[in-house]
Amino acid sequence: MIDVGIIGASGYTGGELLRFLKYHDNVNVIAATSRQYAGINVSKVHPHLRGENIKFKDIPAEKVDADLVFTATPHGASMDIVPELIERGIKVVDLSGDYRFDDIAVYEKWYGIEHSAPLDAVYGLPEVYREEIKKSKLVANPGCFPTGGILASLPLAKEKLIDAIILDSKSGVSGAGIKPTGATHYPNISDNIVPYAVTTHRHMPEIQQEVSKFGDVKVSFTPHLVPVIRGILTTAHAFLKEDVTSEHVKEIYDAFYESEPFVRVVDMDEIPRLSAVRGSNYCDIGCFQIDPNGRIIIVSAIDNLVKGASGQAIQNMNIMFGFDEKKSLDVTGLHP
Amino acid sequence: MIDVGIIGASGYTGGELLRFLKYHDNVNVIAATSRQYAGINVSKVHPHLRGENIKFKDIPAEKVDADLVFTATPHGASMDIVPELIERGIKVVDLSGDYRFDDIAVYEKWYGIEHSAPLDAVYGLPEVYREEIKKSKLVANPGCFPTGGILASLPLAKEKLIDAIILDSKSGVSGAGIKPTGATHYPNISDNIVPYAVTTHRHMPEIQQEVSKFGDVKVSFTPHLVPVIRGILTTAHAFLKEDVTSEHVKEIYDAFYESEPFVRVVDMDEIPRLSAVRGSNYCDIGCFQIDPNGRIIIVSAIDNLVKGASGQAIQNMNIMFGFDEKKSLDVTGLHP
Amino acid sequence: MIDVGIIGASGYTGGELLRFLKYHDNVNVIAATSRQYAGINVSKVHPHLRGENIKFKDIPAEKVDADLVFTATPHGASMDIVPELIERGIKVVDLSGDYRFDDIAVYEKWYGIEHSAPLDAVYGLPEVYREEIKKSKLVANPGCFPTGGILASLPLAKEKLIDAIILDSKSGVSGAGIKPTGATHYPNISDNIVPYAVTTHRHMPEIQQEVSKFGDVKVSFTPHLVPVIRGILTTAHAFLKEDVTSEHVKEIYDAFYESEPFVRVVDMDEIPRLSAVRGSNYCDIGCFQIDPNGRIIIVSAIDNLVKGASGQAIQNMNIMFGFDEKKSLDVTGLHP
Amino acid sequence: MIDVGIIGASGYTGGELLRFLKYHDNVNVIAATSRQYAGINVSKVHPHLRGENIKFKDIPAEKVDADLVFTATPHGASMDIVPELIERGIKVVDLSGDYRFDDIAVYEKWYGIEHSAPLDAVYGLPEVYREEIKKSKLVANPGCFPTGGILASLPLAKEKLIDAIILDSKSGVSGAGIKPTGATHYPNISDNIVPYAVTTHRHMPEIQQEVSKFGDVKVSFTPHLVPVIRGILTTAHAFLKEDVTSEHVKEIYDAFYESEPFVRVVDMDEIPRLSAVRGSNYCDIGCFQIDPNGRIIIVSAIDNLVKGASGQAIQNMNIMFGFDEKKSLDVTGLHP
Repeated sequence: MIDVGIIGASGYTGGELLRFLKYHDNVNVIAATSRQYAGINVSKVHPHLRGENIKFKDIPAEKVDADLVFTATPHGASMDIVPELIERGIKVVDLSGDYRFDDIAVYEKWYGIEHSAPLDAVYGLPEVYREEIKKSKLVANPGCFPTGGILASLPLAKEKLIDAIILDSKSGVSGAGIKPTGATHYPNISDNIVPYAVTTHRHMPEIQQEVSKFGDVKVSFTPHLVPVIRGILTTAHAFLKEDVTSEHVKEIYDAFYESEPFVRVVDMDEIPRLSAVRGSNYCDIGCFQIDPNGRIIIVSAIDNLVKGASGQAIQNMNIMFGFDEKKSLDVTGLHP
Repeated sequence: MIDVGIIGASGYTGGELLRFLKYHDNVNVIAATSRQYAGINVSKVHPHLRGENIKFKDIPAEKVDADLVFTATPHGASMDIVPELIERGIKVVDLSGDYRFDDIAVYEKWYGIEHSAPLDAVYGLPEVYREEIKKSKLVANPGCFPTGGILASLPLAKEKLIDAIILDSKSGVSGAGIKPTGATHYPNISDNIVPYAVTTHRHMPEIQQEVSKFGDVKVSFTPHLVPVIRGILTTAHAFLKEDVTSEHVKEIYDAFYESEPFVRVVDMDEIPRLSAVRGSNYCDIGCFQIDPNGRIIIVSAIDNLVKGASGQAIQNMNIMFGFDEKKSLDVTGLHP
Repeated sequence: MIDVGIIGASGYTGGELLRFLKYHDNVNVIAATSRQYAGINVSKVHPHLRGENIKFKDIPAEKVDADLVFTATPHGASMDIVPELIERGIKVVDLSGDYRFDDIAVYEKWYGIEHSAPLDAVYGLPEVYREEIKKSKLVANPGCFPTGGILASLPLAKEKLIDAIILDSKSGVSGAGIKPTGATHYPNISDNIVPYAVTTHRHMPEIQQEVSKFGDVKVSFTPHLVPVIRGILTTAHAFLKEDVTSEHVKEIYDAFYESEPFVRVVDMDEIPRLSAVRGSNYCDIGCFQIDPNGRIIIVSAIDNLVKGASGQAIQNMNIMFGFDEKKSLDVTGLHP
Repeated sequence: MIDVGIIGASGYTGGELLRFLKYHDNVNVIAATSRQYAGINVSKVHPHLRGENIKFKDIPAEKVDADLVFTATPHGASMDIVPELIERGIKVVDLSGDYRFDDIAVYEKWYGIEHSAPLDAVYGLPEVYREEIKKSKLVANPGCFPTGGILASLPLAKEKLIDAIILDSKSGVSGAGIKPTGATHYPNISDNIVPYAVTTHRHMPEIQQEVSKFGDVKVSFTPHLVPVIRGILTTAHAFLKEDVTSEHVKEIYDAFYESEPFVRVVDMDEIPRLSAVRGSNYCDIGCFQIDPNGRIIIVSAIDNLVKGASGQAIQNMNIMFGFDEKKSLDVTGLHP
């Protein structure tokens, strides 16, 4: 039994952490912090938690005494909190972008923030870094687009089948967070498909960093906001350098993800779909079709709040503490 | 040819006024005001107007010299503007609630605002007040819920067939305006149906005021926000005092709205639907079914931004200036 | 450990039964039948079950040897199957309407089907019939609208506070089943709100039957199809016979549902919402506001496929076999 | 004044043709045929046409005596009808794929249909073939994806800036037609994004045919069905062969479409959006951003039923008969 704190628990990722931890019998949630909602039951903000007996607390991170802390804080805010936690011997899974980059300069360029407190961290993609995560004190939980984008790209990169890949991603609106904006205003996004940050999204260098470790592949990335609550569907387009078959590529993916509990390579007669992963920690990958121009299409689907955020964070916690990796995460998607 | 100004043109009703006036060959739009967007082309806010050569102006109402002004200003703000316009001999169609009530005390109670400048105004529902509107200098354009709710209720009230009516209304999100709020945040309203202000909505006394003129009927009203961009569907439930048939009631409605250009009583084998009125100035009314308990159901459908706001405002303008009442409004709905 | 069969497992209710039973450690699913999909993995139809190792079988009900069978068969088909199962000593939870009515004549009138095989059955609403369900061999699982409608109405009926109630229900499209129709065609229901069977829905007499047992209340019911995947929100309108307060009515509901594991009476500052129950077996009830005309509004929210169908069926199974009533059903809603 | 017939008027494109022709004062609709709905008012199928006094007729094409016929018939059916119409001197705009291909072999390969009656036809994209359309007797109206895809690609191809282009298109569900299918079933497409026919869609060779006339560019195309009623947003990705700026590319597009009435190149600070073209005949094109890998993104937006089908068909008719090209088509989009 470990004590767990959540710093910044009033956002969507906080709500999802609480949802999964509720069923985790090795975990005791000792603090869910929020300045704005201090003293209020979490269910007033996260209505699916109706009946839970947890109140938001307005306490600073340095007053949280736990075995592990999830920092569900904004980019730029985590770096003010994490070092002190680590110093006190508390393990941390940070959901912000602050510790995802090997090269601080890349972070500073794309986030426009000076990094005040760099630390050694492991990039929390268990499919790649499981062994490192086991020993880590600080795990940088991957971004939502990177999770689906990297998992779709790695096997092609590793096998040197491509030089470049274009990730055309479609994200549900919960990815934009709990705070209303013009972009998330229902009349603006319902019945609409909105490309944004088409060449400038900061998840691009994150994907590039990880894909580069497997092969010399140039990553191009364009996200779209779509009228979906949860889920990211990524359509990856790449021109093959060799004349291979779809079946062969599928075998490569099957082998790459063979023992992964949360990556499912789907059959050739199916295509990943959001409802199959909605609410769950799965990443479904498939398609593998090749057109007459030698372009291959890989499609991945995740729930941006689960495998793209809080579910993966708990998966990382399970690995860090030697729990069963699927603990509390063994739930199906919600279809329809 | 008349000169027309729009005070507060950056909201949805402003965008709709501009859309219809673009095709009105008796009208010259001389000013579309907005403090926030002064100097910017209207199409930057209203993207459907792309190509229009109109810029928002930040000028006070008293500098607008026109034959008619639409005040698309918030409740409480119109009363600061309208008297001066009227004094200068400018006709006004006010889209706020400020001039809709016969009894100032009712306004002040339900809007929680002291009324600083009461004036004689005509309630701008042409189906009831056409003759008064012709001679009016100030028309109070009806609220969106009241338009559909009153039109659904009047014939029953007039024929003394009912003592009470329950209006269960479902409104598209554009009715909440162009400004993002928690209620309009996509993840909150998509895949959801949200009752709100269930007994306290200020459109309730407005509907009551008008229905009472036709019969002694108690009006109960509950609105819902629904995952729809445009449109209000109202399901009216009322217990009949007499044993009449659906066919008989339909005849009453047919007769009542016989010569109305924008009210369509639909056949018994159909039901009003939002796509039939989407983008148009029609109010469709139908159903007339009676259950074993003697409850009759009347359904009305409007586009909240058109017949429920800007379209009706232009209809009123047409009447006030002796133009063809359908001028620039003769467009079908958009289905699918 | 019991053996369970599902007859007609290829519909949405079949998919949901399989989803919950996957986590039920007292249950072994020995057959999921489907003529159309025989030999195919269930995940090809129910994509959220990807990874499950269950294939549809085309076997007749009489070849299913189990401790309990869920008959997820259409109205009129269950009566051909259920008697033989019961005769063989198999317990049955029937999800059709065939065994829900005390009076066969009512069934035959509203369903337009002659009932060939009436049997003693218990109406499977645990909040009312828990003790009877424990001893029952055949449980008639309630309809989706009746579940939310009855639970919203009972306390008012029992306390003799009303003579009549109007249920204005809004149902997600999954309630129409897995088979595409004109009504479920995306362009027809997206951005739309569709009243249907306004006075003739066969769930009306089912609700009336159960409410009548608690008080002399006339039930009027009108369903709407709404652009939502899952969920029924019912807005109940009733004129109070006595001058009571909202707080008093809430206390009545609190007391009535005090020990119910799956009914949550929500606080006065909240309103039931679909995302709080999505994917879960909860029925949330609240509102209790009273307007100046003495009309009270009660709002209930359920997931039509869970508390409105498969979740409740499993709740009934748990009761019939003495399992913990919450077994495999203890999951929160999915918000956002 | 010309007489116009519509063969196959009960689908969405038929409904849209009728919507626009209603306001066209040079056109008299003398027949709207439908076998299934013969004798029924068009508004029973196309509810936005409520009030129109036109009934579907079940007459064969050879009994239609008109100046122009729109054949809104399925692929493979047009070829049985069109030759006889042409022979009788009737001009034809065919909305099927039957006459879009220069090379019959390509048609036969991708449509899997033997072509029984090839004829000389002009590809009905006015931005390219206006002069030919003026003199044509048979115009093959472009497909919906090709319209947006070709218009987005041509200037890049003409300037030899690219060798290959990837079109990642997102289509609203009305593009799938009026007939319900599994793919259009609300619970399947709501909250979902569905790639389909990822390398095999028959609009691919159509786009390739037209783009090839402007440059040696390999076209790769993948469509997605998205939870939108109307509209296609195409995100085109291409690697530039030269080092050019976004501004330069925008100038190329500005020049290319300078005098086009229905193509709007949007400012660099905006992005094409579906609501700006919804219900209208515009194609909006923009973006022009270039990422560090030299990939340029071009985005186009159309209403699939208007510029992607019926609106363009009427634009072609206007050109064929020397009417003002914008006649009856001069309507804005519908936002929000």
